[in-house]
Amino acid sequence: MNLRAVSLIFLASLCLASLTAPAIADEGMWTFDNLPRDALKSTYSFAPDKAWVDHAMRAAVNLGGCSASMISPEGLVLTNHHCVAGCLQQISSAKKNYLQDGFLARKHEDELQCPATEVSRLEQITDMTADMNAATKGLTGEAYKNAQNAMSAKLAADCVGDQKETVRCSVVTLYQGGQYHLYRYHRFSDVRLVWAPEDAAPNFGGDPDNFNFPRFGLDASMLRAYENGKPAVVKDYFPFSASGPKANELVFTAGNPGRTNRLLTISQLETLRDVRLINNMRRGYELRGVLTEYRKLGPEQARVAYNDLYFLENGLKVTSGELSALQSPELMARKRGDETSLKNFVNANPKLKAEIGNAWGAIEKAQAVYRDMVSEYDAVEGGRAFNTRYFALARALVRGADERVKSNGDRLPEFSSARLPVVERQVFSPAPIYPEFEKLKLEFSLTKLRETLGTDDPFVVQILGKESPAQVAQRLVDNTKLGDPALRKALWQGDRAAIDKSDDAFLKLVRDIDVHARTLRKRYENEVSAVEQKSAELIARARFAQLGSKVYPDATGTLRLSFGAVQGWTERGKPVTPFTDFAGAFNRNTGAAPYALPASWIASKDKINAAQNYNFVSSNDIIGGNSGSPMINRNAEIIGLAFDGNVHSHGGSFWFDPVMNRTIGVTSGGIQEALKNIYGATELLAEIKGK
Amino acid sequence: MNLRAVSLIFLASLCLASLTAPAIADEGMWTFDNLPRDALKSTYSFAPDKAWVDHAMRAAVNLGGCSASMISPEGLVLTNHHCVAGCLQQISSAKKNYLQDGFLARKHEDELQCPATEVSRLEQITDMTADMNAATKGLTGEAYKNAQNAMSAKLAADCVGDQKETVRCSVVTLYQGGQYHLYRYHRFSDVRLVWAPEDAAPNFGGDPDNFNFPRFGLDASMLRAYENGKPAVVKDYFPFSASGPKANELVFTAGNPGRTNRLLTISQLETLRDVRLINNMRRGYELRGVLTEYRKLGPEQARVAYNDLYFLENGLKVTSGELSALQSPELMARKRGDETSLKNFVNANPKLKAEIGNAWGAIEKAQAVYRDMVSEYDAVEGGRAFNTRYFALARALVRGADERVKSNGDRLPEFSSARLPVVERQVFSPAPIYPEFEKLKLEFSLTKLRETLGTDDPFVVQILGKESPAQVAQRLVDNTKLGDPALRKALWQGDRAAIDKSDDAFLKLVRDIDVHARTLRKRYENEVSAVEQKSAELIARARFAQLGSKVYPDATGTLRLSFGAVQGWTERGKPVTPFTDFAGAFNRNTGAAPYALPASWIASKDKINAAQNYNFVSSNDIIGGNSGSPMINRNAEIIGLAFDGNVHSHGGSFWFDPVMNRTIGVTSGGIQEALKNIYGATELLAEIKGK
Repeated sequence: MNLRAVSLIFLASLCLASLTAPAIADEGMWTFDNLPRDALKSTYSFAPDKAWVDHAMRAAVNLGGCSASMISPEGLVLTNHHCVAGCLQQISSAKKNYLQDGFLARKHEDELQCPATEVSRLEQITDMTADMNAATKGLTGEAYKNAQNAMSAKLAADCVGDQKETVRCSVVTLYQGGQYHLYRYHRFSDVRLVWAPEDAAPNFGGDPDNFNFPRFGLDASMLRAYENGKPAVVKDYFPFSASGPKANELVFTAGNPGRTNRLLTISQLETLRDVRLINNMRRGYELRGVLTEYRKLGPEQARVAYNDLYFLENGLKVTSGELSALQSPELMARKRGDETSLKNFVNANPKLKAEIGNAWGAIEKAQAVYRDMVSEYDAVEGGRAFNTRYFALARALVRGADERVKSNGDRLPEFSSARLPVVERQVFSPAPIYPEFEKLKLEFSLTKLRETLGTDDPFVVQILGKESPAQVAQRLVDNTKLGDPALRKALWQGDRAAIDKSDDAFLKLVRDIDVHARTLRKRYENEVSAVEQKSAELIARARFAQLGSKVYPDATGTLRLSFGAVQGWTERGKPVTPFTDFAGAFNRNTGAAPYALPASWIASKDKINAAQNYNFVSSNDIIGGNSGSPMINRNAEIIGLAFDGNVHSHGGSFWFDPVMNRTIGVTSGGIQEALKNIYGATELLAEIKGK
Repeated sequence: MNLRAVSLIFLASLCLASLTAPAIADEGMWTFDNLPRDALKSTYSFAPDKAWVDHAMRAAVNLGGCSASMISPEGLVLTNHHCVAGCLQQISSAKKNYLQDGFLARKHEDELQCPATEVSRLEQITDMTADMNAATKGLTGEAYKNAQNAMSAKLAADCVGDQKETVRCSVVTLYQGGQYHLYRYHRFSDVRLVWAPEDAAPNFGGDPDNFNFPRFGLDASMLRAYENGKPAVVKDYFPFSASGPKANELVFTAGNPGRTNRLLTISQLETLRDVRLINNMRRGYELRGVLTEYRKLGPEQARVAYNDLYFLENGLKVTSGELSALQSPELMARKRGDETSLKNFVNANPKLKAEIGNAWGAIEKAQAVYRDMVSEYDAVEGGRAFNTRYFALARALVRGADERVKSNGDRLPEFSSARLPVVERQVFSPAPIYPEFEKLKLEFSLTKLRETLGTDDPFVVQILGKESPAQVAQRLVDNTKLGDPALRKALWQGDRAAIDKSDDAFLKLVRDIDVHARTLRKRYENEVSAVEQKSAELIARARFAQLGSKVYPDATGTLRLSFGAVQGWTERGKPVTPFTDFAGAFNRNTGAAPYALPASWIASKDKINAAQNYNFVSSNDIIGGNSGSPMINRNAEIIGLAFDGNVHSHGGSFWFDPVMNRTIGVTSGGIQEALKNIYGATELLAEIKGK
């Protein structure tokens, strides 16, 4: 349930992916245009041909932070339940709780639109490295960053052309600037909910079982992509396998891993370990306590806070796991060894040495700047001080008005023409906002603001004045109308003057701090991120020279293929078998949450095939963002649905451990068993068995 | 407000104090029998004579986790407000909230007994090193530990003799076994509350200002020691200085610093950094969120949870500060340098080398064992799984019955005859217990138990069975009568058979897990703590050989003298002046908690001398446990009352930084100003000005 790209506060803004050491065993999140065909052939006696690859690329789809796949010619989409949880919450109300009760549409007319959900299908990859390099040649700092942003914006805009309703494009920085590729997607912006089980089924075991195995979760749901008001007609989709997964079978995942940090430099890893992860833990665990208690106030509070707590807990497990990994002397020794080896390689080659210089030293200096400014930067420009959707919306409106009047290449990248649809989807979303819950989160983040920067900090004084965090939160939320999507749409379609006229509390707040926020951003980009990117680009070149091109880039939230085998592992000397079954789920049922199977399961117990395999593990190399990835066999048939990694997968952020790191999925047979004997979803079963 | 010895969950059980490198500047928490007279003389032209030292030793008193001092011949005791907060909460009820409202007794008859408070005065120090060394000679592991416990129990019991009502004795391990001293105290077990301001005065600035300066807190209160129902007559007490503190003046603190870890080995520091502090942070910040929300439920919940949250937040600042210190490359480099230097010194001397062996290696091996068992040990034997007073009481009753029938030397040390009064004070305490609050904390800790050990762990299965943590917490609390002090007293005075007959839920729980808990304790003592202690004793000997005896031991919660000067420091290039005044407090007042001065202050504003100095800083080397320490001038007059350190003082756990580390106190003039012009405490003013 946990491989959705982790939520914003957990995403490093370090932007420092880089390429990796030569792949071992089943390692690697490979781009579809550079698959390790030789390794696959030698290990698994199977190398996919071009038709297979093109088909898989178009049948796998992106769900914005999650992965998914087409599983019928009528645009039926399979993904994880936790990837549609946001939609379920948005379409729920105090009267109807789809998260808790689940949903099944037996007819297309009953399918419910997900307001903020978009499905996109990768259609084309074009190498733009030469264009990007030419644009930034000889530049550093802000000039480097601006030139890069401008060229990215131009390439994406040219790619979208006048088809912005159906096309999305973006420049993907691979190998940390070793390559820049332009990805062109087909957009499906009308996406509807088809099936979701009751939350107690996918979330069986809850936080305690999260990232653990043996596992018993039905973390599956279905959506449908629509075009022109009708189910989309798609040529490429994955049918369900008739037999399901077999032990030791080759299995692929095609999905969108969010971010790995496998080749950060030592100084960056130390920053991550000592600053970012610690800060996130401190804040995150406290917020977890706050949300846990808030949910106890009543069923409505429980419903409203559900998703925030769910993803927070998931993120905290990731953070803790990453911290453990970075505390491992073994990992750090290997990282130091790799870095030393590459430095030696560079220093032994005068031309390379002249070109690369002390890129590592430059990054290390940038870390010192970052450590000095991180608290203020995160609070003000990162928005950590204002943990409420109102603030995010207000900032989108204010900056949107400021940026859209600029030429495309001069804008903040998130407002470049190719990315505006993403912003608009958020701004226009009819998903409800709950003022009391927003006050809670805002009070918390304002309290942390004061705690982090100190009572006498000028920004803290500006925000709090003579009020307490609770008073400020209440005043701001009581004096905003940004919860109204129609008002937001009107403001978005107006100009900066219209926004300046508004006395909305959050618009005023954003206006009041924006100069300061942009100043911090400029310093950060100039002295930290541009230095890191430029230096990492140099290091990437050195690494290409050292290792050749048969390496994979760090994850970037874009489509990747990983491969592996259905197999367990050995934990403290005891073998963990790769499959669980439905009998195990009933054995584990205590009736007390999170170990309470839904009533529908209890009622169906006699009909269910207890021996049917249910969850399973494989040695695929995946990470957060891969949630919902189809797990397919060599015939490109669905044999499972990835939804989690085991506890050892947290280290996957920094390296791949083929011995311990495992992907966790629901088996194709498990999904079908549930559809048939618990949910009676005859029509869906027929559709996925279809052709 | 923050130098009370931090609460149990933050106290390392590492037990690894050791002696220190030669003291620099104002460094050192010195035992009264080994003061650095030469350094004092050369730096401050003042070396206290024997009469001065004996007087100061007897006027300073211990308050069990806090420090205090006698300030009148009638047993009046000065300490911090936060050191009497426990008493204030215990004597409060839903109808009368002394924490919030404050208290002033104008006559002895109005003074209110503090049920769990004891004052003790150090009277004699005797060197027992030879006896202890003889007892443990040639022993290792469990045998070493047992022999040490037995000898400690015997020495303490002999020292108390038949005067257990008025005498307390304990063996103090100094220099990690370099010396064992027997400390004999006079006990005052009838202690009554005389004066406490409203909480908003001492806690002005709350958690945000905690460990910060400039500061504006009246963290002062007064108790009175009674004997035979009358105010105790004492010869040694500190009068208030007429002039108060002056910039650059020499100032002493006489108090009981709880624990420093200045000479842990590198492997122990790494364990602290990577395991203990991280675990404490993860758990503590989440509990903070829980308690913060619980306090919002209503005034009674706010009152009941007050102290837990206060000390938790204080402990979390300490933990975070210690973690930062241990992440500092500079600190770790110095520690590595010291360790290498000592190892080299040992290896250069064949006799020493033969004696010390690889003590560092032995400690490092013990760390691996500790890391392997820490989660289970903390949960089961440490009681972390059961965060409720009921559990602590039940364990005291069950183990008390088991242990007291053994001979004194064979008992668990906490039940040795000399320490029974401490246990009895807790067991018999009439302080109220609030079942709903206990359920909250217990549910939390049971949830963490499952999270830490995993759902399938046999101990977790034993405790939770088919119930949720909330259900178990409710069932246990609903089925205990241990909230009744009379019942506890009866059980304590009975035997194990009486306890076995009880169906009280917590007694049953403790009985059910005690074999397992004791097994874990035995393993821990045998493979971890005995190894650490024995090895540290060897390292301490090497250090004596290297550095001589003019060094101070790590803090051990016993009486120490520190010295320094009234002076500020420089923060990021800006000087911080050493004094604040009452005008500053009113400037900082926003009217919103925690920056809301009490109504009594607002009403008295015109009477108060705005220019009177209020809080101040000095360069004394103190740490948690020093809360309430008298700050005295060379005439042994009170010029201030220590209550906190600045943010740089957290590093004081590991080293002393004379440039940045500062003690924070309330000035003697500030206390008198408040007593006179806010609280109208004419009688108290007369008493402290007295003779």
